[in-house]
Amino acid sequence: MTNITPNDTICAIATAPGCGGIAVARISGPEAIAITNKLWKGTDLDKVKSHTAHLGYIIDPSSHQILDQALATVFRAPHSYTGENVVELSIHGSTWIQQELLRILIDSGARMAQPGEFTRRAFTSGQLDLTEAEAVADLIASSSAASHRVAMNQMRGRFSQRLDTLRDSMLKLSALLELELDFSEEDVEFASRTELKKLAEEIYQELHRLTASFATGAAIKDGIPVAIVGATNAGKSTLLNTLLGEDRAIVSDIRGTTRDIIEDTITIHGTLYRIIDTAGLRTTADIIESLGIERAMARIKQARIIIWVIDPNDTDTINDTATQINRAKTDDARTIIAINKTDISGTDINPHLPADMDATCLRISAATGKGIEQLKETIHSLSGAAGIDENTVMVTNARHYQSLTTAKDCITRVIEGLDANLSCDFIAQDLRETLHHLGSITGTVTTPDILTHIFSHFCIGK
Amino acid sequence: MTNITPNDTICAIATAPGCGGIAVARISGPEAIAITNKLWKGTDLDKVKSHTAHLGYIIDPSSHQILDQALATVFRAPHSYTGENVVELSIHGSTWIQQELLRILIDSGARMAQPGEFTRRAFTSGQLDLTEAEAVADLIASSSAASHRVAMNQMRGRFSQRLDTLRDSMLKLSALLELELDFSEEDVEFASRTELKKLAEEIYQELHRLTASFATGAAIKDGIPVAIVGATNAGKSTLLNTLLGEDRAIVSDIRGTTRDIIEDTITIHGTLYRIIDTAGLRTTADIIESLGIERAMARIKQARIIIWVIDPNDTDTINDTATQINRAKTDDARTIIAINKTDISGTDINPHLPADMDATCLRISAATGKGIEQLKETIHSLSGAAGIDENTVMVTNARHYQSLTTAKDCITRVIEGLDANLSCDFIAQDLRETLHHLGSITGTVTTPDILTHIFSHFCIGK
Repeated sequence: MTNITPNDTICAIATAPGCGGIAVARISGPEAIAITNKLWKGTDLDKVKSHTAHLGYIIDPSSHQILDQALATVFRAPHSYTGENVVELSIHGSTWIQQELLRILIDSGARMAQPGEFTRRAFTSGQLDLTEAEAVADLIASSSAASHRVAMNQMRGRFSQRLDTLRDSMLKLSALLELELDFSEEDVEFASRTELKKLAEEIYQELHRLTASFATGAAIKDGIPVAIVGATNAGKSTLLNTLLGEDRAIVSDIRGTTRDIIEDTITIHGTLYRIIDTAGLRTTADIIESLGIERAMARIKQARIIIWVIDPNDTDTINDTATQINRAKTDDARTIIAINKTDISGTDINPHLPADMDATCLRISAATGKGIEQLKETIHSLSGAAGIDENTVMVTNARHYQSLTTAKDCITRVIEGLDANLSCDFIAQDLRETLHHLGSITGTVTTPDILTHIFSHFCIGK
Repeated sequence: MTNITPNDTICAIATAPGCGGIAVARISGPEAIAITNKLWKGTDLDKVKSHTAHLGYIIDPSSHQILDQALATVFRAPHSYTGENVVELSIHGSTWIQQELLRILIDSGARMAQPGEFTRRAFTSGQLDLTEAEAVADLIASSSAASHRVAMNQMRGRFSQRLDTLRDSMLKLSALLELELDFSEEDVEFASRTELKKLAEEIYQELHRLTASFATGAAIKDGIPVAIVGATNAGKSTLLNTLLGEDRAIVSDIRGTTRDIIEDTITIHGTLYRIIDTAGLRTTADIIESLGIERAMARIKQARIIIWVIDPNDTDTINDTATQINRAKTDDARTIIAINKTDISGTDINPHLPADMDATCLRISAATGKGIEQLKETIHSLSGAAGIDENTVMVTNARHYQSLTTAKDCITRVIEGLDANLSCDFIAQDLRETLHHLGSITGTVTTPDILTHIFSHFCIGK
């Protein structure tokens, strides 16, 4: 575990690494203002009001040479990001000046901040709960409107509020059980078992909704995987190129042209999709192609949406391909059948599709672009990403998912206990455990180890 | 020429591109505050004091959705970088949020800033002269203490002050000449020709000092080139590796191991040096090696410092090598003779060096590191980079060098005119031209084309 001293003063460059017009160094801690004053030529920062900006010079105290002209903004505790005294120094964005400023700050008594340490201090001082702090990292990493929206909702406490409501229900259940426990020797039953069970089942349902949202939530964060599959020469690579709007994959009339997995992203209505072109599914003696087909099957397993491309003039392998897709795909995945090459004459007949395939069927031409817009709309409506608004709560964090899943297991045991008419002792124990796991999400129950693990994924300077 | 409308409001991300903890967007112009207010949920920025920071939310006016929580710092004209109203928005550093913020700002009436446009406005509004504005770009690009110091001195107006003094001398000379001109028909001579010539020669000397500093100034900016040359197997590549402190070049006992030019940088006392290992100079039938030797000669021509490595047990080729070095090197370049392999016994005799070689001689062992520190000190003291302090003025900018060189040509004609007893008309004309070229450096004489050219080398957001 990394050693964290909570009461020293930390510093870091908070802006993106590299050369820019300006860069911002952030200093936080009880000595933030005093340390900055040591290298500051300008207004005494100890005497200025909070939230004011001052132009001055940064002087290297050892050489007395000017490092840079800079703007210092002072934030006094508790009215700052970390809840501590904070100074932000806006300097010229040369990497050399950035390095030198950090050296001078460290020489003057500050310590280089660890990844996420500013946000960790915001959590420790109660400015943010743990899910809100984690959302800061997600927000910074967000690369589409949808992932941004989910992170922003989490940062604004929407997820915490849902957990609080859930916690209130549990505390109510717990209180009823504990009451019964206190008077257990008198054989009095304060709440009917039916009532207790109804409450526990409501909690289970809510936990189930939250854990179920993780598949979509996590996919939104990283891009929703969409696999393009089908027989060789069905036009899968042409479809990939058309969806991306560029010549990403090599296209030819020769069966088995694509062997490697080719992947790129597109954004549909602000949601990021990872479009994956796979090798055509067929029996082949070519070893490299066989390996490609194996990888294609693995990607079908990971996909949330499968686009099965069919050439209507080449329908012999339809049943075989359907079997392979059905075997590989997960139950959650949705399938779109795209009947391709509809620009070529003689393709207006509908191929005979297997009855057990639950899929949306579209007619497209990857070569001319016909039906592609409709295909995109279908991908988006099937993905579960449509309709995310500022009230949407989704689990996007594996740690939260883990805790919620464990809490769900515990509450299942509570329900089973109630069903089996177990003693309140056992049931109350399971319920306390449920509460514990829920508390670990927002950070009401936590350990330094867990915190160190969480914040180590942050960038330095945040 | 790019079209610049001076009175609209511009915006850009001022921090380095990419993902960071935070990013800063800068908005400058008469409508900077009004435009930001359109997307701002928080304190009315129109009512806040200059140089104050305010926490609030950025709202997309079209969708009414929250883009980010942000900190807005307001600077009111003329107390800002550009001299106009400026708002700096400190946001979470996701690239997506950065892009979205720019989109919203543009939708709200701001225009995307062109490269260097903020600094150009600072120049237009008289906050900086042209050399100070150009120094901002150099400061951002500076990658060593020496290049930083030179840029900082220029940004703080040290160079402009020298030019002002020079300009005062010229105006004095001009006034004396014009006076004579006014009364020319009366054949009165107000200033003695000797006095005028003395003044003109002082101006010439100062222009000469400034133009002469360009070779070192430009080298300091990009790294001072140091070429390691000598016969094959003298230990040049070993010396390169020892100077760099890493195994950069392949070393073997076989003559002609190095063919390609190998180059890397080291910093000595804060000055950047580009150390260049070259092929050993010898007559060879190997075509690739011959090409390498040709390139070595070209690099000797560019070098400011030449380290000639000699193996004291292999002195037959000394005179040939000396001839080759002397032919290739420029007059400005300084030579260090490094007698290598002094760790091997029998090397304590001094090889017979050519008498016409003006060089500093050192005994080293590239293999053991003996004498390497002294070699570094010698490189630094010969380079002209030692002793740069906060008063050092050096020409580092090719545009300045060009103008100063032209001014020097003009003042030479003035002196020749005075010598030849030419009419004051002709001499005054040359002097006016000298003043013009000097004025173009600080921007007192300039055109929009020149400005566009200068600022197009800046990064966007500065």
